[in-house]
Amino acid sequence: MALGRSATRMDADLVARLRGGSPRGLYEAAAHLVTSGGKRLRPHMAIKSCELLGGTIAAAMPAATAVELVHNFTLVHDDIMDNDEVRHGVPTVHRKFGTPIAILAGDVLFSKAFEAISGPRVGAARSVLLTARLAAACTEVCEGQMLDMEMAGSDRVPSETEYLEMVSKKTAALFDASCAMGAVCAGAERRDVSRLASFGRNLGIAFQITDDLIGVMGDPTVTKKPVGNDLREGKKSLPILMAIASVDGTSKRTIEECLGNKRASKKNLAIAVQAIRMMGIDKDVRSRAQSHVKKARRALSGYRSPASKELLALLNFVVERNL
Amino acid sequence: MALGRSATRMDADLVARLRGGSPRGLYEAAAHLVTSGGKRLRPHMAIKSCELLGGTIAAAMPAATAVELVHNFTLVHDDIMDNDEVRHGVPTVHRKFGTPIAILAGDVLFSKAFEAISGPRVGAARSVLLTARLAAACTEVCEGQMLDMEMAGSDRVPSETEYLEMVSKKTAALFDASCAMGAVCAGAERRDVSRLASFGRNLGIAFQITDDLIGVMGDPTVTKKPVGNDLREGKKSLPILMAIASVDGTSKRTIEECLGNKRASKKNLAIAVQAIRMMGIDKDVRSRAQSHVKKARRALSGYRSPASKELLALLNFVVERNL
Repeated sequence: MALGRSATRMDADLVARLRGGSPRGLYEAAAHLVTSGGKRLRPHMAIKSCELLGGTIAAAMPAATAVELVHNFTLVHDDIMDNDEVRHGVPTVHRKFGTPIAILAGDVLFSKAFEAISGPRVGAARSVLLTARLAAACTEVCEGQMLDMEMAGSDRVPSETEYLEMVSKKTAALFDASCAMGAVCAGAERRDVSRLASFGRNLGIAFQITDDLIGVMGDPTVTKKPVGNDLREGKKSLPILMAIASVDGTSKRTIEECLGNKRASKKNLAIAVQAIRMMGIDKDVRSRAQSHVKKARRALSGYRSPASKELLALLNFVVERNL
Repeated sequence: MALGRSATRMDADLVARLRGGSPRGLYEAAAHLVTSGGKRLRPHMAIKSCELLGGTIAAAMPAATAVELVHNFTLVHDDIMDNDEVRHGVPTVHRKFGTPIAILAGDVLFSKAFEAISGPRVGAARSVLLTARLAAACTEVCEGQMLDMEMAGSDRVPSETEYLEMVSKKTAALFDASCAMGAVCAGAERRDVSRLASFGRNLGIAFQITDDLIGVMGDPTVTKKPVGNDLREGKKSLPILMAIASVDGTSKRTIEECLGNKRASKKNLAIAVQAIRMMGIDKDVRSRAQSHVKKARRALSGYRSPASKELLALLNFVVERNL
């Protein structure tokens, strides 16, 4: 995946919006995750979507910067809500700066995103479309995070439809907006914007399904988390709810013993994961992801250009990450 | 103050944006403070600013709704940061729904605000100006809250200039944006927008100075808080920093004993407040507020209409609230 050139350009724009801001303590906290890594997947998608429709990297920059700022805002606030301590190998913002400053750091990233798409260099006709897309996506992300928290706090096992709704809002809405906003920056027709949005939405769902599979079956040396981590955390993700629906006998007991049990032994977790693998759940989950990959590919079927090739390559990257 | 007609209209629009939203738990939390009261000062200012420049209530509605949503977003997040338990006589959002949902409720109010000003009925030319104004104001509010937290956490007594910078950002930026956005909704010229912005900014500063005076000297039967409450809380507000700068002898000791001392006795607090009053600090503080009232009045000096009268009446309301 060649995020190189566009990522560098966007990084410079991002950092310029945060570095040197005053009060310093606020902008240091806001820049903490932004400068500690991240794949810059969303801005890359915005830029390539813009290029695909005849726009330049420069034209895509407001959208690219805004979606990365929003992504970071959601990470900062989610980490507080989920009480996570480490991200990108560094302490989370609330661990390093305390919860009040972390809330505020998220808020300022949020407002900076809307500054980025309403600046003097963004024409009015495009700006209003960008704002509408980004605001609607942010609302969806909040709704998705709420659904996720409700699922995590309930004993009820959600249906696959409920899981997909949550994922579509929490993760895929911002991928959708990234591509759509990139297209808007190219001055694209509404039909093209919709196609790119559909590409982003489906890529986002496939991305999250794959992520959730890694969370259960992933290689601990790659994920840096114990085997079956999401099982132990009691996360109601697709592989887990499919496993619960189809398993029985001893394996069912082992899986149920591990689910949400922070003290589950490594041995039992390994047995549970092995049982899930034996049942072929991983293949079923991958095929669900693949169906969204197909939809995403179909959305781009009318385009042929270096940019469309790069977007399609992202699809493979997303679903073929290390398991 | 007749907020009646415009407030009712705006309330209907506000509630429509939140009621019935799904997931219900999120939108109940988001609507909690919105529906529990509040003066609707900011939307009123947006509406009157729009009318002043020839616009209708309907034209002002996107701005009016957006600034009230943003105001509520800041209240929800500030209450978490300041660990406040009651507002408008009801439990704060994080007390009632827990911190994670409160963070999310604030976030969704934020994104709904930007949805309100980028909807299909807002023309592109106005929408981009509204977004730029609102986003910049939100950034300022975050910066002001950070300055406030830094001041509260430091032993150093801030200068009057530092206090005013904090107040200008934390409180007055959104008043500024409310008026400016109302003016934009009327399709006003840039010069008129600037005048309304200046009116809002100065009104906001006078409002906060007066609020801070009430926080120290206010009548407990009106404020529902003990005499000298802000003194006991160690708040570095204008009346307190002016008192510290000019007092000496026994009074100085009493004031210093009370400052930030949660266990200060009622008697000592009363003595400290009386000392501040004797020194005429309240008059000095009021005269600072009055200087901003004058600037605000000057900003509107070129206008004569029922709307300008209502805006000027607000000025009196703001600085003549019960002490």
